[in-house]
Formats: sequence, structure tokens, C-alpha cells
Amino acid sequence: MKIAMAQLNYHIGNFEGNLNKILGHIAKAKIDGADIICFGELAICGYPPRDFLEFSDFIRQCEESIERIRMASKGIAVVVGAPTHNPVPEGKDLYNSAYFIYDQEIVAVQHKALLPTYDIFDEYRYFEPATEFSLVEHKGKKIALTVCEDIWNIGNENPLYTICPLDEVIDDGPDFILNLSASPFNYDHAEARIEVAKANVDRYKVPMFYVNHVGAQTEIIFDGGSLVVSPDGTIYEEMPYFIEDYRVYELDDVMAVGQSIVQPKDKILEIHDALILGVKDYFGKLGFSRCVIGLSGGIDSAVTTVIAERALGHNNVRVVLMPSQFSSDHSVSDSIKLAENLGIQYDIIKIEDIYKAYMHELEPLFSGLPFNIAEENLQARARGMLLMAISNKFGNIVLNTSNKSEAAVGYGTLYGDMCGGLSVIGDVYKTDVYRLARYMNKDGEVIPEHIITKPPSAELRPNQKDSDSLPDYDILDVILEQYIEHRKGPKEIIAMGYDETLVRRILRLVNINEFKRYQTAPALRVSSKAFGMGRRMPIVGKYLS
Amino acid sequence: MKIAMAQLNYHIGNFEGNLNKILGHIAKAKIDGADIICFGELAICGYPPRDFLEFSDFIRQCEESIERIRMASKGIAVVVGAPTHNPVPEGKDLYNSAYFIYDQEIVAVQHKALLPTYDIFDEYRYFEPATEFSLVEHKGKKIALTVCEDIWNIGNENPLYTICPLDEVIDDGPDFILNLSASPFNYDHAEARIEVAKANVDRYKVPMFYVNHVGAQTEIIFDGGSLVVSPDGTIYEEMPYFIEDYRVYELDDVMAVGQSIVQPKDKILEIHDALILGVKDYFGKLGFSRCVIGLSGGIDSAVTTVIAERALGHNNVRVVLMPSQFSSDHSVSDSIKLAENLGIQYDIIKIEDIYKAYMHELEPLFSGLPFNIAEENLQARARGMLLMAISNKFGNIVLNTSNKSEAAVGYGTLYGDMCGGLSVIGDVYKTDVYRLARYMNKDGEVIPEHIITKPPSAELRPNQKDSDSLPDYDILDVILEQYIEHRKGPKEIIAMGYDETLVRRILRLVNINEFKRYQTAPALRVSSKAFGMGRRMPIVGKYLS
Repeated sequence: MKIAMAQLNYHIGNFEGNLNKILGHIAKAKIDGADIICFGELAICGYPPRDFLEFSDFIRQCEESIERIRMASKGIAVVVGAPTHNPVPEGKDLYNSAYFIYDQEIVAVQHKALLPTYDIFDEYRYFEPATEFSLVEHKGKKIALTVCEDIWNIGNENPLYTICPLDEVIDDGPDFILNLSASPFNYDHAEARIEVAKANVDRYKVPMFYVNHVGAQTEIIFDGGSLVVSPDGTIYEEMPYFIEDYRVYELDDVMAVGQSIVQPKDKILEIHDALILGVKDYFGKLGFSRCVIGLSGGIDSAVTTVIAERALGHNNVRVVLMPSQFSSDHSVSDSIKLAENLGIQYDIIKIEDIYKAYMHELEPLFSGLPFNIAEENLQARARGMLLMAISNKFGNIVLNTSNKSEAAVGYGTLYGDMCGGLSVIGDVYKTDVYRLARYMNKDGEVIPEHIITKPPSAELRPNQKDSDSLPDYDILDVILEQYIEHRKGPKEIIAMGYDETLVRRILRLVNINEFKRYQTAPALRVSSKAFGMGRRMPIVGKYLS
Repeated sequence: MKIAMAQLNYHIGNFEGNLNKILGHIAKAKIDGADIICFGELAICGYPPRDFLEFSDFIRQCEESIERIRMASKGIAVVVGAPTHNPVPEGKDLYNSAYFIYDQEIVAVQHKALLPTYDIFDEYRYFEPATEFSLVEHKGKKIALTVCEDIWNIGNENPLYTICPLDEVIDDGPDFILNLSASPFNYDHAEARIEVAKANVDRYKVPMFYVNHVGAQTEIIFDGGSLVVSPDGTIYEEMPYFIEDYRVYELDDVMAVGQSIVQPKDKILEIHDALILGVKDYFGKLGFSRCVIGLSGGIDSAVTTVIAERALGHNNVRVVLMPSQFSSDHSVSDSIKLAENLGIQYDIIKIEDIYKAYMHELEPLFSGLPFNIAEENLQARARGMLLMAISNKFGNIVLNTSNKSEAAVGYGTLYGDMCGGLSVIGDVYKTDVYRLARYMNKDGEVIPEHIITKPPSAELRPNQKDSDSLPDYDILDVILEQYIEHRKGPKEIIAMGYDETLVRRILRLVNINEFKRYQTAPALRVSSKAFGMGRRMPIVGKYLS
């Protein structure tokens, strides 16, 4: 039996686009003599469709796509994910389902039982969990059909769930497990996925074919890495990451064991590739091609620009240098050098006269009051406005250059340097931004060395340094990670040996700056806990603040 | 038996504040000879605590508050909501529970069974549903203890749920039902709540005491309106809306039937009062007192300013008039008149020179290109920056003045007129903004008549009118409501008799402007479907766009 796996980049709500991609791969699999072709979870409509699922018109379009696939299934079995109606009045209106379609017949529809409702996932908002499980028979083989999270409660050991779908069917003797997933990237997740796939195979002693999505949907990046696991737990093949792929496997070969193709793993390499895919898909799926970035001479905008250049091409990236009276000479010279290294268009626009125009008009109100954050923010906002004006004039999307460390503690200006359509490195801590820069330079200098080595500064007042108001990023990032990724409280972090005053100050900064993060662009998610849809915090709260 | 009901304004995460309020009311109820005092759902920590619930430190503080309440319960039963640990490893870590504490003993802990996971609610993200139900006995009475949504599945007729908690205990013969709620306001919801309370009483023939929260938590406004229902279904008393309240009821009186105190209902009045409470609590709970608003001479900023003045007092509201070369004379004169009517501080800052400073610097890039949205947005953003500068200099929070109609179709400038810490009327359609203005003027002119009667205009280019680019608001608002509140698709709306081209254009505008709404301030929620946390849409999608 030949099993084809299609690791594809879907687009939420783009029914025609998704369908054409699926139909194209069905045709290809027929030519390749495949008996079955597998696509991803909710492949019909893209994942996550979010509240589009509440529109009956949207569900109707999903059904129309399934009908078109049914018509195309002559001589081949197609396994594809789509939402389906819950036929009884009790419970949620929909199921998250895997269709098994063969020879123009819908042979089986297996619903998903384990509905992730945490972090970025909201599945219980829409879907009723499956309560019935059965194997699908095809050409003499018995197949256990599962959807994503269904395989993540091995032997009921995951405390989130009280059911283990594969345990329900294992006595019927499946020949292999198919899993349709939409499992998003974070830099720890590929390894977790492999462990889960292996643990299932260890438990049930049958091979597994695990098909993932690839591609970004706004901030969520699907990394691919679909898996075929031999019955002894060997990874028969780990498909590539961050690109579409399509492969056909002979079941007997997978059963026989004998090969193990795996992919390299490295946190910084993965973040690098994920961000490039994230930027590329944000533009491609919105129908834009060009971006504009404010280059400050600092490392954040430099790394963002390199990502953009690698995602969109040097002809589609333009940068703007916007020095003020407080800017160092090297902020301009380092930026020009970077632009020249990348071969991208740059312009220099001074903001001093704009700043003076504001101060002139504000003089009657501000007269006699000391220089403070109002004047600092005016500079950052003047820059933001210039970028937005260029965006509006030429149709370039502004890319935001904030990193996760500063987003966490509110070290940024709303509507100023926090502006932009997409935050590229907003889920990357500053210490990892440095690592990314080093990685980008591994085959020769792309980012000028001085950008990497100089002390970070916002340059909004004379001789300002980040270290004037923030602790060293090495310490800051560790405390932030304990609080944000690991949900440790102040007592637990202090018990790790950090200064109590510092810890309380940082946690307070994180909490009181929720209002700023609320109004900023979606940030490409690369960690297990990114700001945005996966971290839902009250703005008006008083916890640790 | 005397039952005290405390309809209070809690503050998320403010354990000390919430506890003091609760302890104060326990003391008062003791003096009043009450046998039981009831507080709201999750009153200990405020509702909704969102992802703070994922911090064990946060749960520990909840437990400490419960311990303090236990110590204070000598001689009185206290019924109060708090999160509790799920003691078994299976399922979610927490329950959403009602404590029944008497004489320093925890008599019972009833968990919530029906966990709303739709719109603004995410309860299944955190909580395991209850599976066990039993009555609480107190001084010879048997009490059915329920939490909010638990009473919203009468006889299993709500399709969202498969269990009806009160059906589980009714055979044990409860004397009355207690319900601890955190039921947020929308202008249709008070009536729905009354219907549900009555329907429960009709079914079970026992009285109900329904305690709600009051007060705003960022965008979510709790309106109070706690209910006491006599066993024949009469509303014995509907407590006031939008203010804290505390009352003591004699159970025998409620049983006897004989009074029916209800509150007036009117959509515009309710929106008006809700918005005032929303603004007041946003400032009060964040520790701010003063706002700044850009007054354009249009109706949106006028209505926003009146709300602000009524919430914060005229000494705490300052407005800024920022005319440009495209501004009409009346934009200034009408605004001055409004400011004078309200007795609030106003300043006039011209933006023409600031605009020219930008255009001068952009000349090398923009030379020869026609005036377009870049120049229009520059004006709106120059105004936004001036407001933010005043905010940063004086500590006033900028109030956003966008209405729901323009937020829906993207008729606004990101970082310009869409700036601000809180969107006051962002969930009010333009046609209702006019109704609010009329209501505000009911006892004499507050908003100058000309502001209400002149055709709406953004005044960003010569002789611009909203009607140049948008349909009449009467039509626009109906189509938007069908799509947003009622989740109707294009075919259904067209079938109602609206022009197909217009409907498709409007729905497309709503969907392609998700990126703008993503970056704007939280909007006080007054409808059943507000933009923000209750409406979760992909930015990069292609549905109807």
C-alpha cells in the first residue's frame, strides 16, 4: 500500500486556493500510484479559522470544497480535515473532523476528541469532542484515523484530558495510525512532537503517518516536519521544515524498518527560518510584496531587515534612517553599511525640524516644564509617522522591529517604534536577537560588527543607554522567561537566587505594560508563550502591579 | 431567614481591595442580622482573571483571601466565588467554585458545571466542569448553590450543554436557589437574564436569589441588576443597575409574594450609563483621574467628551482642538461651544505647520506624486501625536473617539484618530451615537445642535464628507449588525433586500480591516458582539475579501 503525504501551506478562508492545491496533489498522487493521500487538519479552510467558524456561510463553503474533493477521489483514498456539522442539538454546533473519501464515496468521518483550549488554541469555543471511535478499512488494511491532539494523551497520562482515542480502537487491531495535524512551531516543539509520535508507536506497535501544515497564518507559524514512524519507534522519515513537501511511502518499507531520515535541530537556525517564512507568508497571503523598516543603527532593526531581505528579496525592502539631534554618527554610518551589504534602498530623513514643529506648537502648553518622556516619545512617534506615510504612499507594509524583552517591560513607544503591521522579532528575547545576528553573519559579514558590539541605546536623549533603565539583558531575559514561559511567581523566581527588588520591579513592568502590548502588531510566534492571542491578560488588573 | 445580597464592584487581582470590600459587607450583614450573605462569581479575584489563573501564586492569593473570610464568618454564612484546585490529575487544574462558609467552617464547595466558552468567555481554558451536585443545608433550609451559567440550561434546552445542574438536585427539595454570577452588560442582556431567572423559578417552583457583579474590567462592563424572584415567578426585586448595592431580604417575605420592584429599561439610557461606568472604572482602577480628548467638531468626539465629563468630572477632562487647512470654521466654534457648555479646559493647536514640516522632509520621496491617503493620514496622526504628547507630559489618558461603524469598515487612521487608551464608543454604531447625543441633550443643550445636524466629515481633504466613501449610516449600520451581531453571510443579507454590490463591499471592508482593529484600544462593550476579545478573527485570511 502506497501512502502519499502532502505537507502544504494553506490560507485561512481561501477556499479556492486551498482546494486547487489539494486537487493538484490528488492528481499527482494518482499518477504516483498512491492508494491514499493525506492532507492536514482543517486543510479545507486553513487553521485556525477562528470565529469564521461561527458563520454558516463559511461552513457551507467548506462543504462545497469537500464535495469537489469527493468528485476527484476516483481510484484514490483522500484523507482531509474539515469542520462538520454536529447533527444533534446538544453540544457545540461543529466537529473538527477527518474525512476519509474513496472512489467518490465518503467512507468515514472521524471527529477529533481532544480539543486544545489553552495558549493560542480555542477549539472548545467551536467544537464538540468526539465520543465515538472506529477504524477505517481500506484495501484490506485497518486504519486508525486521528486528528492532531488526539495522539497527545498517551495512556491517559496528559492531565488535560480524560480520554485516549487510540486506546478505544487498539483492540480492533489497526495496521497503522494516520494523524492529520496543524501543529504550530515553537523552538521546543519539533522534539516534543517526535517524542509523542514515538511514544504512540511504542505503545501500539504500529506505524504512524503524521501530516502537518507548513506556512504562517499571521503570527502562527506551521513548520511542517511531518513524520513517518516505523513500528519499532524509528523515525523512518522526518520531512523537511518550513517548506511545502509531498512524498509517497510504501507501507511495507515503513514496516520493514531500515532507514531513518531526520532533520537537523538548532534553536537559532529554527527561529531564523521560521521568521523568514512568517514574513513571507504575511505579505504573500495579504497580497503585498514590499516592506519599509526604520533603521536605527541598533541590532533589532538590523536583524529585522535581514529577515525581511531574505523573505521578500532585496528589491522589496526599503529602509529609512531617521536621525535626530540625539543620534550618534554611527547610527547612520552603521545603517548605511547594512543597507549596502544587503543591496536595499535607503533614505535618510532628519526628524529634527519635525520635532521642532511639534515643540513650537506645544510651547504654550509645555512652557517651563522639564524635558521628559513626552519629548522622547515625540521623536519615536515622528519616526513612526514617517514610516507610515511612506507605507501609505507606496504600499509598503511597515515592519515592526521591537524585541520580546522590550515588549515585555514596555521599553518602547506606542505609535512610535511600536508601530507596524507585523512584529518580526517580537517573540525573540534580546539575547537571542544577538544570537540571530551572529548566525546571520556566519558566512561573512551581513550585519556590520559594530551594530552587534555597541551598547544598545534608544538615543532619545543625550548619551542614553538601555542599561540606564533596564538590567543587563542576560539577567532580564532569564527572569522574563521564568515569568512568561514558565508562569513562575515572584517567590519562586526570587528563590532561584535573583534580587527581590529587581524581580518585583520586572514583573510589575510586565503587568502594567499590558495596555501597550494590546495595541501592537501581531508578533511572529517562535516560543511556547508569545505575547498576543496565546497570552490573555487583563489590562485593568492589580496583580503584582 | 435573612439573606443579604452584595452587588459589588471588584477589581481583578486586587486581593486586598476585594477582600476589604467583602469583609466590610460581612460585618454590615452581621449587624443587620442576616443569616447568609452572598457575593459574586470569582469575587475573590475579580472576573475575568484570564491567564492570571495559570499562575499558582495567583491561586495561592485566592486561597489566602478565602482563609481570611473563613475567619470572619463567625455567626454568619458567607457564599462567595473563588477558583479552587482540582484535586485529581485528570482534567483542568481548576474549578470555578462557590464557597459556602459558616461559623469558620467551609461547609461546602460547589463547582460550576456549565463553562461558557464563546464570545468574551474562555472558561474551558481554565476550568474543569463540575460533575457532582448537592444541596447545602443551613439553619433548616436546603439551598441549591449555582454559579452563573449553571442556570442557563433550563431543562437541557440550551444546545451548548448536555447537563442541567438544577435538575440534578431538584428531587432533594431545595428551599431556594442561590446563583453567584458575573454576567456582563449588553443592551439586550438584562431582559434575557430576567427571562432565565423566571424560567428557572417556573420550572422548580422555589425562589431564586441571583447576585451579579457591577463595575467595569477594562472593556467588560458588569451592570448589576441582581434579582430576587418569588416562587410564582414574580420579580420580587430587581436591584439597581450600574451602581454598587447591598440589600437584605427576609425569605418569608419573598415566599409570600406581594411586591415587585423593577427597573426601567431603555437601550440608549443603558448604553449611556454603561459607558460612564466603563470610563470611570478604567481610570479609577488604573489609578488615573484625568483624560484628554481631541475635539473635531463632529458628533463622535462630542459624545465621548460628554461621557468623560460625566464619568470623571469637568475638572478632569481637557480637550484639544487641532484644526488644519481643511477644517471648517464651525469645527472650531462648535467645539468651543461644547467645551464651554461642559466647563472643561480646551486648547487650540494648529497642525498646519507640523504637517508642512513632514511634507518638507518627505518632499524628496513624494515629489510629483498625487495627494492621497498618505497626506490624509499624516493629519490624523499629527493630531494623535499631539494628544499623546499631552498625555505623556501631564499624565492624562487619551480617550479614543471612534465609533463602531467606522471601526468596522476601517474608516479611521491607525495611530491617528484610532489612538488612545480606551475606546469609549467603539461598540456603538453611528446611528446610536446620534441617539446618545439626543439623549444627552434631553434636559437642555449640552452638545451644540449644529454638531448633531451637520453632515459627518473627517475633514482631511477639501469638502470631504463621510458619504463620499460610505453609504448612509442608516443602511450601513443595519448591514453591519446583520454581519457582526447576527453572523449572517452575504447571501442571507442580500436576501433581506440589500444591494449585492453594497453588501459584498461592506463585508469585505470589515474583513480586510481586521489589522487595524487588532491594534486599537479596547472598546467598552455594550453590544452582544463587540470588536476585541469576544470576536476573534484571522488577520491574514481571504474570506469574503
